[in-house]
Amino acid sequence: MKRYEALAADIGKAIDDGTLRSGDRLPSVRCMSDSRGLSAATVFQAYYLLEARGLVQARDRSGYYVCAGAPQLSRASPAMRRDAAVQLPRDVFESIAEGIAHIDAGRVVPLGSPYPSPAYYPLARLAQHICAIPQDLDPRSIMEVPWSGHDELRRQIALRYQSAGVDVGVNEIIVTNGATEALHLCLAAATNPGDAVLVASPTSYGALQTLQQRGLRAIEIRTHVPDGIDLQELGDALVRNRPKACWLMTSFQNPTGSLMPESKKRAMIDLLSRFDVPLIEDDVHAELHFSDRRPLPAKAFDTHGLVMHCSSFSRSLAPGHGIGWAAPGRYAMDVARRKSTSSSSAPAMLQIAIAGYLKQGGYDKHLRKLRRTLANHQEQMLQAVARHFPAGTRATRSSGGYFVWLELPAGIDVMRVHTESLSMGISIAPGPLFSASRGFRNCLRLNYGHPWDTRAQEAIASLGALAAGRTGARRSALVTVAGDAAYVPVAVRTSPCEGLAVVDAARV
Amino acid sequence: MKRYEALAADIGKAIDDGTLRSGDRLPSVRCMSDSRGLSAATVFQAYYLLEARGLVQARDRSGYYVCAGAPQLSRASPAMRRDAAVQLPRDVFESIAEGIAHIDAGRVVPLGSPYPSPAYYPLARLAQHICAIPQDLDPRSIMEVPWSGHDELRRQIALRYQSAGVDVGVNEIIVTNGATEALHLCLAAATNPGDAVLVASPTSYGALQTLQQRGLRAIEIRTHVPDGIDLQELGDALVRNRPKACWLMTSFQNPTGSLMPESKKRAMIDLLSRFDVPLIEDDVHAELHFSDRRPLPAKAFDTHGLVMHCSSFSRSLAPGHGIGWAAPGRYAMDVARRKSTSSSSAPAMLQIAIAGYLKQGGYDKHLRKLRRTLANHQEQMLQAVARHFPAGTRATRSSGGYFVWLELPAGIDVMRVHTESLSMGISIAPGPLFSASRGFRNCLRLNYGHPWDTRAQEAIASLGALAAGRTGARRSALVTVAGDAAYVPVAVRTSPCEGLAVVDAARV
Repeated sequence: MKRYEALAADIGKAIDDGTLRSGDRLPSVRCMSDSRGLSAATVFQAYYLLEARGLVQARDRSGYYVCAGAPQLSRASPAMRRDAAVQLPRDVFESIAEGIAHIDAGRVVPLGSPYPSPAYYPLARLAQHICAIPQDLDPRSIMEVPWSGHDELRRQIALRYQSAGVDVGVNEIIVTNGATEALHLCLAAATNPGDAVLVASPTSYGALQTLQQRGLRAIEIRTHVPDGIDLQELGDALVRNRPKACWLMTSFQNPTGSLMPESKKRAMIDLLSRFDVPLIEDDVHAELHFSDRRPLPAKAFDTHGLVMHCSSFSRSLAPGHGIGWAAPGRYAMDVARRKSTSSSSAPAMLQIAIAGYLKQGGYDKHLRKLRRTLANHQEQMLQAVARHFPAGTRATRSSGGYFVWLELPAGIDVMRVHTESLSMGISIAPGPLFSASRGFRNCLRLNYGHPWDTRAQEAIASLGALAAGRTGARRSALVTVAGDAAYVPVAVRTSPCEGLAVVDAARV
Repeated sequence: MKRYEALAADIGKAIDDGTLRSGDRLPSVRCMSDSRGLSAATVFQAYYLLEARGLVQARDRSGYYVCAGAPQLSRASPAMRRDAAVQLPRDVFESIAEGIAHIDAGRVVPLGSPYPSPAYYPLARLAQHICAIPQDLDPRSIMEVPWSGHDELRRQIALRYQSAGVDVGVNEIIVTNGATEALHLCLAAATNPGDAVLVASPTSYGALQTLQQRGLRAIEIRTHVPDGIDLQELGDALVRNRPKACWLMTSFQNPTGSLMPESKKRAMIDLLSRFDVPLIEDDVHAELHFSDRRPLPAKAFDTHGLVMHCSSFSRSLAPGHGIGWAAPGRYAMDVARRKSTSSSSAPAMLQIAIAGYLKQGGYDKHLRKLRRTLANHQEQMLQAVARHFPAGTRATRSSGGYFVWLELPAGIDVMRVHTESLSMGISIAPGPLFSASRGFRNCLRLNYGHPWDTRAQEAIASLGALAAGRTGARRSALVTVAGDAAYVPVAVRTSPCEGLAVVDAARV
């Protein structure tokens, strides 16, 4: 291939994949010649060729411009280089998970979304803090943030632990790029490929993916909605599977919304300590409690340094800012080392801005308002579910967070409901997403953290109709228990909510 | 221990580690009582106890305040929980590396720093872009950034590849939290623990740490300053060690400043392709070239999708913003998957701001100024080295970047020089940091990317004196070769610089 043909082919490819768009001006002949080390004549020939192909157009004294009709940027997953096979997503659940993580909430009702609406967060005030970082601030201060994180931010995080009654000192805290990174680093510190890790069943899709990618075996432990995993099964698995870690979201779990009572957390920590198995505790929803008091994490009962507590500001204060942290107990030094080679530090200006916001005050006022909003939305959603879903549907009423877990009557295939609802512009998170066994085929997770409006109401009505559609079941009131208790989908019994005597813990 | 004693102990601990500082007001009795679920009487007793111990002081009608004299925040590495042993840094080089990464450039002359001065970057203009993201912008747009990165940012990155003559399409680009994350994800995609990975010798401390933490065996290949690794040794290692990857910084290498000529890059890629060994190419210094043209990366010669090109804006535009990317060839899908479970996305507002800056223009003008500054500093530093260092010292003159690599006369121990210079408030990066063998004991890396002033001049003079001090060597002109060629520290011969006929490549 001649040089001018090769250059024309490169430019053509850039137009094709959207790097160059309609109306973009090509570099001048001289610039292209300089930057590519080609003669001007070669560049001219390439541009003539592209013009002949109708891809670019010369404008007098102005240069060459990409013609209209050039394709727009596609949001396709990263493609392979030309010589390698294009790999398709591993399975349909990967596509579903990616889809619900990137819902365009303007076009699709985001009931399947993993995130609350960013509209409920003080983004404008946070932006003010970022912009207030003085323009003439010594730029070096941006560079001199310790690897473990900005001092004042870590102090503010430690203050919140302290006022909540959790013994975490400032020197144990390592700031990370989101809770995702905190969890991943803790896992890396505690395990090696091939090891077994205990998780809840159902559990978050992200946890399952992380374990799979790292060659770890996920051992799923049955979950009692509303109070967390079965400690009897946990004990059995500790003996049988010799796991190297346990990964749980103990408060307002994703996807079930369950809250493990404090006495049960204490019992669980005792059990794990006997086997010297660390707990990686994902606690990102802790501040979203509907009662007056924040539930203590399992970390509060840790006396051996075995609980690696992970959290972030993404669900409580600052979505999209990517500021998380780990308090990894005895693994702190290991996690700090891994942090430094895993990614760059969370951007200093965002750490500084959040620290400034926390110091200024107003966080608790924001949280109280957010909690009221979420609690209110849950009520409305549950009423709508009761009104529209088929008889025999079971729903949780969570005491915090923004997820409702529904179990449809046996025989209804939630994958069918998912496909049909998507075509109606409604997203849900289908149960099989949350277990490697792809069970929970009649379960689904709904997000009530978005504005509750007519659109949302109608979506619930449509979903109920879709669920009922093929079974001919009557559409009538869902059976729920008054007050805060809710049915356990797996076994027909009521479980007391947080704060009362816990039946499960007593069984251990 | 009684409840009030336990509460007092917690608060005492928080004062001790700096979470609570002198003058901080303790939460009101009522707040503490609510948040901890304790009676007001218990909280009162705890506060009285702390007052009796002289740690807090009651102020009329105002509350309890931490007394003056309470310890300040310590910047210690994360400590262990009380029950676990405190782990010391693995070896002295870890401390040295951490020290040079966090130099307080106000107190210590930062010749050992890994980073250029942030003063040379358009941070104020970038901040304007961040603050211009309108306050009433739909917050959802912050959330809807694809996992692979903001569309316009990826397009801008692709445009720069394209104008440099490198065939990377927008869909191959994955935005990461810094080049550190790009490199780490590529490594995870290409290797498993126990595998061998080829690196240069010397190579960056970060690369060695990353490999060690992941249980990978670093196989060091001798480097010819100024033109990169020895291809003969590379070929031998490919046969003997069966590595799963090769990790190199091919342009303006850290720490030697070497630039691999394009013909040699092409030859190296041919060699690696024959063994199907991917190259993880760290190219963060590429834009810091002193000649008119940006050197082509090895990626430009890749026809098999085996080059995983990694870079960031940290050295060229936006230090402290943590925006990097990977163009991982045939591994793109794997890397994208791993990205989603490794950390949160690089903050959307920073991606948007950088994309806005690039689109607005001015990047090349900034770069031209930065390159001139760096080239100028290198000349001044080399002149000072020639004037003050012992006879027989060898120095590189790099054609880009901000590192100078010095080889002191045999017998001078750079670790001694390092210790002594640090006590004089001068940092250097000693040679043994850059090889697992802890060789290069008479070598050091100096950073000329900071303002060149009297302080820097005097530091070079002091270093030269320290180097000479114990050997009794005469202080006289360093022997350098005129023009751009420089001595190879290991063998006494001159190597031509980039752009001329390359002796090494011809040997393969």
